[in-house]
Amino acid sequence: MTEHSNFLQDTALVSVGAGLWQGHIVPNWNIGDNPNGGYLAAVVLGAIAELSPEHPDPLSVTTHFLRPGVADAACEVQVELVRRGRTLTTARARLVQEGKTRLEVLSAFGDLAQPSSGVGAQTGVTLRAPELPPPMSCPERSGEAQGVDLPILDRVDIRVNPADAVVSAGGRAEISGWIRLRDPAQESTPASSIAAVTFTDAFPPALFGLLGVIGWVPTIELTVHVRRRPATPWLRGRFVTDDLHGSRMIESGALWDENGDLVAQSRQLGLLLS
Amino acid sequence: MTEHSNFLQDTALVSVGAGLWQGHIVPNWNIGDNPNGGYLAAVVLGAIAELSPEHPDPLSVTTHFLRPGVADAACEVQVELVRRGRTLTTARARLVQEGKTRLEVLSAFGDLAQPSSGVGAQTGVTLRAPELPPPMSCPERSGEAQGVDLPILDRVDIRVNPADAVVSAGGRAEISGWIRLRDPAQESTPASSIAAVTFTDAFPPALFGLLGVIGWVPTIELTVHVRRRPATPWLRGRFVTDDLHGSRMIESGALWDENGDLVAQSRQLGLLLS
Repeated sequence: MTEHSNFLQDTALVSVGAGLWQGHIVPNWNIGDNPNGGYLAAVVLGAIAELSPEHPDPLSVTTHFLRPGVADAACEVQVELVRRGRTLTTARARLVQEGKTRLEVLSAFGDLAQPSSGVGAQTGVTLRAPELPPPMSCPERSGEAQGVDLPILDRVDIRVNPADAVVSAGGRAEISGWIRLRDPAQESTPASSIAAVTFTDAFPPALFGLLGVIGWVPTIELTVHVRRRPATPWLRGRFVTDDLHGSRMIESGALWDENGDLVAQSRQLGLLLS
Repeated sequence: MTEHSNFLQDTALVSVGAGLWQGHIVPNWNIGDNPNGGYLAAVVLGAIAELSPEHPDPLSVTTHFLRPGVADAACEVQVELVRRGRTLTTARARLVQEGKTRLEVLSAFGDLAQPSSGVGAQTGVTLRAPELPPPMSCPERSGEAQGVDLPILDRVDIRVNPADAVVSAGGRAEISGWIRLRDPAQESTPASSIAAVTFTDAFPPALFGLLGVIGWVPTIELTVHVRRRPATPWLRGRFVTDDLHGSRMIESGALWDENGDLVAQSRQLGLLLS
């Protein structure tokens, strides 16, 4: 990544003490009036990464969204190292705005540049990437279709598989498409493993294809496993909700790079407001 | 549950201060020499539940296993409430033995006895339970087959789908079967939502069907979403690994009760040692 990318600027922090940072949540990643949760998580992960230079990649990230973030406002990030091991650094962290904790995070960082080894290297057990039309043949994500303003589209370019872009009778609760940072300095550079975490929370809700206009679907908790650093600027994603009970749903997803290599798996517990 | 169940006795804690409990990790839940992670997680969840009586069910539980637990040894559980809301109580917690943190937990509790409402109640979007032979037609989980001693079979009755109980050429990394507490006071009583979390970590590794004898597969991190309280003593489970990269694998699973209603979804990041 270059030093001048929007993503790096928007997630930049200043160290103000031991395990303590300050930053500014910009409004450019909003879903409606609320900063996107994946963006807020990236701000927190940047702080953890500063404390674990030998383990720069978030292998496992769980974020509980306690309250909506505040756009265009200062934030404080607090990090406590739980364990620093040979292959993993585990940390807990929180993001605070206006005196209230917004995100509570528990994460294990490692180094995804290490070559694969061991029995797992040879098995070929992997999730297959979905077949999609090329990005420029897929329509851009539309706030109008979903029923919510999407300032976030200023920062990420999201292309929805035409097959999933309309609500159909007997539709599936599934969405697939492409995503990359919308950033002059980034469009030909692969995103970081931390940006991949943001990407898992940036697609339209998978329930859209089934329920149509559903507005903002707040995330209660999101867990992401990053499996490889992205090797290409565009990533393809596929997200499915196969479990909706009461007003809470589980959405499971995955991201692959343009080569079809699996980059991340994600699962979130979300809340239907309507 | 009765007061004399093995599960309740084995997870019992004594309050010794604000957010502080002491207990004893029994050896009856061991996988080899190590206490089962799902059992240790249940000990921690019991402490959180004491602080959130209005929200008794773990809706989302993420546990990082920092170091193996110590069997037949004292433990201390520390809980910090992160947020107490109207519908959710969020807490972080740790389990300490011999001065070292073994588990770090982040969890949101709620009340699964609340009737379903909202748009989600009517959609019928749910994971279907696998078809299985009845429990008594499925062989018991065998430590010999997996290459590890299983004292845990003293506490849980695990029946493996015969189709998944042997390693076959071109086998799938999938395991299904039945589970219930092995407990005279429990065998006709549904398990608690906390025991359901334990159950998601008690089946043979899904990779067994593909790789055969693989010994102990330590869990780095396990996230469980409990969706309903179990309504029957036996639960059926299905666990799949479709992502093995380097020495780390993702195993995703689900539990259903005898009625076929979804009880929990789980996903773990695990480590292949061989």
